[in-house]
Amino acid sequence: MLERFKVPEKDRVYVPEDRIRAATEAILRHNRLTSDSAAISADVLIKNDLRGVESHGVSNGLRRYVAEYGSNKLNPTPEFKVTRESKTTMTIDADKALGIHVGPWAMQHAIDKAKEFGMGAVAVTNSGHLAGCGYYAMMAADQGMIGHCMTAGGSHQTVPTFGSKPVMGTNPIAWAAPAREMPPFLFDVATTQVANNKIGLARRTGAKIEGGWITDLEGEPIMQEIDPPDTGDYYLLHIGGTRENGSHKGFGLALMNEIICNELSGYGPGPVNGTPGGHFFQAYDIEAFTDREKFLDDMDDLLKVIVDVPPARGFDRVIYAGLMEDEDEKKRLEEGIPYHREVIEWFESYCSEAGITCDLR
Amino acid sequence: MLERFKVPEKDRVYVPEDRIRAATEAILRHNRLTSDSAAISADVLIKNDLRGVESHGVSNGLRRYVAEYGSNKLNPTPEFKVTRESKTTMTIDADKALGIHVGPWAMQHAIDKAKEFGMGAVAVTNSGHLAGCGYYAMMAADQGMIGHCMTAGGSHQTVPTFGSKPVMGTNPIAWAAPAREMPPFLFDVATTQVANNKIGLARRTGAKIEGGWITDLEGEPIMQEIDPPDTGDYYLLHIGGTRENGSHKGFGLALMNEIICNELSGYGPGPVNGTPGGHFFQAYDIEAFTDREKFLDDMDDLLKVIVDVPPARGFDRVIYAGLMEDEDEKKRLEEGIPYHREVIEWFESYCSEAGITCDLR
Repeated sequence: MLERFKVPEKDRVYVPEDRIRAATEAILRHNRLTSDSAAISADVLIKNDLRGVESHGVSNGLRRYVAEYGSNKLNPTPEFKVTRESKTTMTIDADKALGIHVGPWAMQHAIDKAKEFGMGAVAVTNSGHLAGCGYYAMMAADQGMIGHCMTAGGSHQTVPTFGSKPVMGTNPIAWAAPAREMPPFLFDVATTQVANNKIGLARRTGAKIEGGWITDLEGEPIMQEIDPPDTGDYYLLHIGGTRENGSHKGFGLALMNEIICNELSGYGPGPVNGTPGGHFFQAYDIEAFTDREKFLDDMDDLLKVIVDVPPARGFDRVIYAGLMEDEDEKKRLEEGIPYHREVIEWFESYCSEAGITCDLR
Repeated sequence: MLERFKVPEKDRVYVPEDRIRAATEAILRHNRLTSDSAAISADVLIKNDLRGVESHGVSNGLRRYVAEYGSNKLNPTPEFKVTRESKTTMTIDADKALGIHVGPWAMQHAIDKAKEFGMGAVAVTNSGHLAGCGYYAMMAADQGMIGHCMTAGGSHQTVPTFGSKPVMGTNPIAWAAPAREMPPFLFDVATTQVANNKIGLARRTGAKIEGGWITDLEGEPIMQEIDPPDTGDYYLLHIGGTRENGSHKGFGLALMNEIICNELSGYGPGPVNGTPGGHFFQAYDIEAFTDREKFLDDMDDLLKVIVDVPPARGFDRVIYAGLMEDEDEKKRLEEGIPYHREVIEWFESYCSEAGITCDLR
């Protein structure tokens, strides 16, 4: 994540991982999730926070989820229904489960199918926010497989190349692959120039929005650096930004995501049916293609080549997706996770009102 | 493809599809391919040319392939060896087959496995140039499936984010999905700002290279518009261009491609082992996830939403990946394919020297 999105030093409250995890689980249980479901859901958010992906951790997510449980938009005790199944695939109606609730279950089924048949995929509909895709792809990598995850939640945010009005959401994608000694590859991005959550983060941290990231409400790209506008006052641009700079590539990726998450899952077009759209989870068993031990050695060799590239003028080092996330995780497990004090105040105020013990400091 | 890469009107020679196909097949047979193999290989190039993807048709490809057959870098009569197989996967040693020779065979095996098990994937090593990925993804769409293809050929062309030296190739990716009435989705791109072949096309057509597409030999992005430099005088940039504009997203996509095409196939790191790297072909059976008829209707609805978006100021219409390719194909089947006269002169001179009948005008 760009430095500008990190919590400014003066606003940081460092919280040990086990304390924020316990508080998050307690808040989810207070919203009628079982202990197991609360633990599974909280793990997604806390791992994201540990890995430095705070755009998809508790800071932006938890108060939204609590509101959605409160209004019955989400079901805290869903029953997942298998609507179609083949040897390698499953389609699931998640019964209004939060994405972070059904996601780990769905990805594990994809992994289990891959163990048996070489590949496995699970499509999920009727579910809430997934909190990014990286966590799920990493579940496969942690089990020695290649993992892939996408979600098409949130339509009408992003303007297609040549268009004046938004059609799709930020349609994030992730892939992960294990290595032996080197930190695993974990590529986890929105197919927009910037994730919508990052605009929220920028408002909180006082960061600027770069030219070529967003458009005005006529779909005209804003090419100068500006303060983050309010929700509803901008649209997003796909990866690339403008056509000459390749936005048709980001737009095509987002459309691939839409087709697999929404059409292949049977949900139907996100731009027509609105949110929530579908999620997609896939695993590839390395042993089905090649020797796993050789794969792990080759991954180490590959990733070492990358970090050994001499940096360009003005930069310190070359990194690959997953490297800084791994460094962040090790550091944050030691030092605690740096939250914005405003987030911790929300936790304390929620816990106090709900009568939950919430020991964060 | 951007207008600048099209053959300028004054240099165009329109050739009927059946004539350029016959000449291409004859040249491949002259290089000791069987009639069947020549027909299969030529079909990839001619379909690319019909679809307006002339960067991956006969213009740039054929003379290179002929040279590679001539120097025994390629094997015109390869035996494909299955080095590993599971229910849903296969890994193939292509015995130095040209990519356009083994590719259609490999993709069909992925499709056949998907028919039986829901998904299928084939990884190929020891093979030459694939001529882009779109053709193979479209094979699945033509058979009512979602298709996916990648190739990691050509290392040391593209500079990673923050780096000064190139590591990977242009690592192209494609996905395709069928619709009912609307032209199919066909997303087929390099994970660089611009495919290397396009620099060659630009030299032929006299087009300019946009700022943020390539770097100098110190890895410094060239940010102004320039004439296309000579081969060896530049490196490519990943999708996005600069870090602030999201090149880490293009870099991550390229790395995902490298990991699946080269490490998962057992070939090993492209930046270490050099070319040729691996190819990857995957098919998803729509019926394994949802009702195929509903999928096709949903695809039509989705794609109509996109083309109905009002264009932004200065643009005529909004398109999706695959729409213009479909329009080009219809038009070119009628009018002939517009080749640069220099390409046709090469055909005529090659055919004359080889004693092949080659009736192109």
